[in-house]
Amino acid sequence: MNITLQQSEKVIKAAFQKATDIKVPMNIAVVDRGSNLVAFIRMDGAWLGSVDIAIKKARTANFFDMNSGEIGKLSQPGQPLYGIEVSNGGLISFPGGVVLKDAQGNIIGGVGVSGGAVEQDHEVATAGAAAL
Amino acid sequence: MNITLQQSEKVIKAAFQKATDIKVPMNIAVVDRGSNLVAFIRMDGAWLGSVDIAIKKARTANFFDMNSGEIGKLSQPGQPLYGIEVSNGGLISFPGGVVLKDAQGNIIGGVGVSGGAVEQDHEVATAGAAAL
Amino acid sequence: MNITLQQSEKVIKAAFQKATDIKVPMNIAVVDRGSNLVAFIRMDGAWLGSVDIAIKKARTANFFDMNSGEIGKLSQPGQPLYGIEVSNGGLISFPGGVVLKDAQGNIIGGVGVSGGAVEQDHEVATAGAAAL
Amino acid sequence: MNITLQQSEKVIKAAFQKATDIKVPMNIAVVDRGSNLVAFIRMDGAWLGSVDIAIKKARTANFFDMNSGEIGKLSQPGQPLYGIEVSNGGLISFPGGVVLKDAQGNIIGGVGVSGGAVEQDHEVATAGAAAL
Repeated sequence: MNITLQQSEKVIKAAFQKATDIKVPMNIAVVDRGSNLVAFIRMDGAWLGSVDIAIKKARTANFFDMNSGEIGKLSQPGQPLYGIEVSNGGLISFPGGVVLKDAQGNIIGGVGVSGGAVEQDHEVATAGAAAL
Repeated sequence: MNITLQQSEKVIKAAFQKATDIKVPMNIAVVDRGSNLVAFIRMDGAWLGSVDIAIKKARTANFFDMNSGEIGKLSQPGQPLYGIEVSNGGLISFPGGVVLKDAQGNIIGGVGVSGGAVEQDHEVATAGAAAL
Repeated sequence: MNITLQQSEKVIKAAFQKATDIKVPMNIAVVDRGSNLVAFIRMDGAWLGSVDIAIKKARTANFFDMNSGEIGKLSQPGQPLYGIEVSNGGLISFPGGVVLKDAQGNIIGGVGVSGGAVEQDHEVATAGAAAL
Repeated sequence: MNITLQQSEKVIKAAFQKATDIKVPMNIAVVDRGSNLVAFIRMDGAWLGSVDIAIKKARTANFFDMNSGEIGKLSQPGQPLYGIEVSNGGLISFPGGVVLKDAQGNIIGGVGVSGGAVEQDHEVATAGAAAL
């Protein structure tokens, strides 16, 4: 029920490939079911400030069993989860964090991607998640 | 004027029962009048990111002698307490934090619940508070 | 391979009983295999500063698959792990943190106790661990 | 003058190989000349508390252009750098952090390894550094 290093590297490899295809250097992080880091890469030229964001996106997705962008819809001003970002040492609630599931559909961790437009981040994270 | 462990366990037991009834696994935290943790449980399958949120909701309610959602009304953009969430190591200003009162109506602490929709969190916290 | 709430409550109940027997009010924390909090109690009259210490002891034991006091032997001046306490947001490396194992001997989390002399903390944590 | 992802992956691959040879699951981190994370892996079964320590060792080595254990000699009680560990969000001053140099001998980053005895950590980090 917890992601292995081998699975994490599959996720990162697939995400790296997608980032290369769309020509956007990315930071890519994988966390396990305890939201603890398992694997990470920063592609050459990727935004430095996105190291932390990629990790926080992966943690956010795993923390709440949903993609990070779903949290963001609920955390806008006037919405039910406004301000949730200050919890857990900092959440990132915009797209780019995606839950990771095994073949049986159990959540086993999260992947977070940061370095481009949020749609690109989400696309790359989704490509990573699809590798499992 | 300060909640005891026995009272805290009553609150948690009642909240746990309500969470079980509505079939949402919850994180449930009780803090005393000093906003310091007295008791906590995470139900199996409850969101991991809600550990911190439940504790912060309990603290928020006790910090300001009002339910956490009341703070949230005042902390929206353009409202008087905009940005208050960054204080005190992080507040949670949406529903799920409820003040705890003794039989005489004195506030003796706070309970915080996180794991479902905010209405569910508030319902479970209120059930906990009613046990005193 | 991860402790449940029911198991955590067994640990806390047994530790509470031992603390009551030796007449020292304690803070007692249980974390799961990801070092995230599952259950916590502060007994009436227990040191307030020990809330955080109990949680950190439980985390420390689970982090390194050994009792917290073992880390402390290695972190003294001149010893191999000198200064390790600054990592992981703060470790506690004196006794009172004990690993939790299931019937098959697999580590499934950690218990941390703080409120008395470190020998008492360790005794109470050990009593908690023995309940599994 | 800054390590690339490709170089970082070479370092991690060599360190992983050495850790596998000596049969100790390790956390392995590589940082660039800015002490910012480039690549990281946690081997299955490696200590969870060593995620942060591996990263801090890599940062420490690169921060001061010397292996982390050299700092530790100077940070003992009564020595010139006593207490330095509290700086920079936490340094780790025992062995396992090694500077990374390019073919010309320029420092281009640091590698940090944690998961075994400090001699093992240092051995694995050194094997990683030798791959450049």
